[in-house]
Amino acid sequence: MPSVPPALPLHPVHGGDRLNAADTPHRGLLPAGLSDMLPPEAAREARAMELVMGRLAAHGYQRVKPPLVEFEESLLGGPGAALSKDTFRLMDPVSQRMMGVRPDMTVQVARIAVTRLKDAARPLRLSYAGNVIRVRGSQLRPERQFAQVGAELIGPDSAEADAETVLLAVEALRAVGVANLSVDLNLPTLVTALCRVLALPGAVIARLRRALERKDEDAVRRALETRTATDLFVGLLRCVGQAEPGIATLKALDLPAEARSEAERLALAVSLVRAAAPDLRLTVDPVEYRGLEYQTGVSFTFYALDTRGELGRGGRYRAGYPEDQVTADSAVVSLTAADDLESIGCTEPATGFTLFMDTVSGAARIELAGKRLYVPCGIAWADLAQWQQDGFLTVRGLEPATDAAAEARRLDCTHFLIDGRPVTV
Amino acid sequence: MPSVPPALPLHPVHGGDRLNAADTPHRGLLPAGLSDMLPPEAAREARAMELVMGRLAAHGYQRVKPPLVEFEESLLGGPGAALSKDTFRLMDPVSQRMMGVRPDMTVQVARIAVTRLKDAARPLRLSYAGNVIRVRGSQLRPERQFAQVGAELIGPDSAEADAETVLLAVEALRAVGVANLSVDLNLPTLVTALCRVLALPGAVIARLRRALERKDEDAVRRALETRTATDLFVGLLRCVGQAEPGIATLKALDLPAEARSEAERLALAVSLVRAAAPDLRLTVDPVEYRGLEYQTGVSFTFYALDTRGELGRGGRYRAGYPEDQVTADSAVVSLTAADDLESIGCTEPATGFTLFMDTVSGAARIELAGKRLYVPCGIAWADLAQWQQDGFLTVRGLEPATDAAAEARRLDCTHFLIDGRPVTV
Repeated sequence: MPSVPPALPLHPVHGGDRLNAADTPHRGLLPAGLSDMLPPEAAREARAMELVMGRLAAHGYQRVKPPLVEFEESLLGGPGAALSKDTFRLMDPVSQRMMGVRPDMTVQVARIAVTRLKDAARPLRLSYAGNVIRVRGSQLRPERQFAQVGAELIGPDSAEADAETVLLAVEALRAVGVANLSVDLNLPTLVTALCRVLALPGAVIARLRRALERKDEDAVRRALETRTATDLFVGLLRCVGQAEPGIATLKALDLPAEARSEAERLALAVSLVRAAAPDLRLTVDPVEYRGLEYQTGVSFTFYALDTRGELGRGGRYRAGYPEDQVTADSAVVSLTAADDLESIGCTEPATGFTLFMDTVSGAARIELAGKRLYVPCGIAWADLAQWQQDGFLTVRGLEPATDAAAEARRLDCTHFLIDGRPVTV
Repeated sequence: MPSVPPALPLHPVHGGDRLNAADTPHRGLLPAGLSDMLPPEAAREARAMELVMGRLAAHGYQRVKPPLVEFEESLLGGPGAALSKDTFRLMDPVSQRMMGVRPDMTVQVARIAVTRLKDAARPLRLSYAGNVIRVRGSQLRPERQFAQVGAELIGPDSAEADAETVLLAVEALRAVGVANLSVDLNLPTLVTALCRVLALPGAVIARLRRALERKDEDAVRRALETRTATDLFVGLLRCVGQAEPGIATLKALDLPAEARSEAERLALAVSLVRAAAPDLRLTVDPVEYRGLEYQTGVSFTFYALDTRGELGRGGRYRAGYPEDQVTADSAVVSLTAADDLESIGCTEPATGFTLFMDTVSGAARIELAGKRLYVPCGIAWADLAQWQQDGFLTVRGLEPATDAAAEARRLDCTHFLIDGRPVTV
């Protein structure tokens, strides 16, 4: 394989089938981070998406399909703001307003929940599947386009709802054959709550966050001045790891009331997940914060131990457009008709998850129909059904072939016909 | 329903479930021509796409997935040029080159065939499913985003291949329950060939085309000067209609040799389709040209008699980038590495079709699982599988409900549990 610029490594799961401009600089076929998916990988991803969506549907999650582009203020309002700089913008010649190509679908589905479906009964369970595009890939995810499949559970704010989301994702990932699944549970609001209760100054918080990110106890000690604060945050660091011991350590900490209720919520979610999935590899990391800035409670990331990168992530958030984003001249106001104004500043509790289907598909074990039968020219179209019903894909000859076996081999078929019966090539 | 600007009528197939900015001008939710698909319509379209892709796979068509955006010269090269002004452009900050958001997937799949898969055995059968976006909707298709599913058959240039494409589309449309299907076969190259043979001047050709478009015999007579030309084109107009009488009329015309071979090819394709689909409603229109400018032979459009708009279309074309588009300074050259240069100016015969899945889904009869079972809070996750295996979608209660039947009704469920057994609400 030709050398690849270090800033943009190819995704490890896909290889031979996916080329892009980074492979051979003079083959300007596709922009970096964008690729063609070829057979059989495209079929495998599509099948994985169908299987995942099938599990979500079985649990009552109803599919919605938001558009690929919408006005930027609706796409980037609320939690969507985090992806603003990753979003391609387009001028809409019809409305003369700026649109964005979606970098994520969660915000779109939340928008649908709080506007179009605001009168639907809660809990509202929605699912979606589609492709998103980002201006730049990241080190961990160099693809600028990938398929997302996800579920959102809107309305309830409870550990039961947190657990349902985790269990649903686990069931979906197992349904596509992902092995060695691991779920890391986070609580990004806990550190925030503690900093507030302890009235830590901004500069201290910044140092503390960096230290926590690196899981560096000494740096945490250096960042903090009081014994109380040091004990708490070093204590939190020691919760990182296997879920049950981590939760036990967390419960033993002398947490202030506000933080304690957060911790108890996480503990309850863990116990609900564990009860339903006794053999699931479950870890907790109550100091993890990166990428979770917009989460408002229990969050989670899905991994497969032998696959690089995340399979997906999710967690608790507020669906809708928070009041502090809505001012008289804010474009967000134009989002809503008069009768929708109640949904502004009146966000709803929600949780959900998104699976990154290129990574999932690489970690999955998807069986595609593999028997390809060469059918010589002259067989009637209606006769193909009999072999298709027996599990064959049929490949018609369009002109006479003198050697059917050789033609079958040439066309990558596994079978050809002798006296109307399929035999192995 | 509020009034809709006449320039942008809502699509008739979808109604209650699809709203956009045109509905209520002050509800700026989504740009005109873009919409959210809600339950159950989104699930219905997805199911229709799965079923169609399943039929294409059964006939040996292998799925590819090109990206949503690519460099504009590859997207708009060859036949793609027709959609240039309908294409949204984006500046790629990584390459500093212009990209286009695909307005169509056929050109992308043809690009894959002549570059990435140029060494794959022919006939090459590819399939695809995805969404496309256009700058402006048309009168007939106001949506600016819609899902396409299609198949391309690359390599052979024969009536057998023409017929396979038609039969495959018909089988796929019937698989999703489209009733009253009708296929209109066209031959846009025939009029062009006749004009060339008769050496008609450009101004005459322009008048003739308008007359033929309107199926106006008198205008055809007025446009032409010689008896030979008049007889030929009026004769062609009289071929429009049911396929078999139309073909008989066509064969009886005194066509010059070049045009005769075109007509014979159409006749052969019709007879092959008819042999495999004796009850199919089949018409011919050898003077139809609109929207077929880039077709190089037998073309076709699919309709359902009770559905407005086309279900899909297709036909013969040249896959690849024709030589006359490739000049020393042409950006198309940058498409290909040195070892790909042979594919430039060396286009391949191809035929294929695209189905417009919003219209197809509206014309289809798709059955979705309809039994929704309310399962009260406290039932173990593992126990849900038993009811799902019996065909129920399960909807978990997340908190205790005093009246399970009422809660089931509130959540739009059809069933709830009494003593662990589903009963109708």
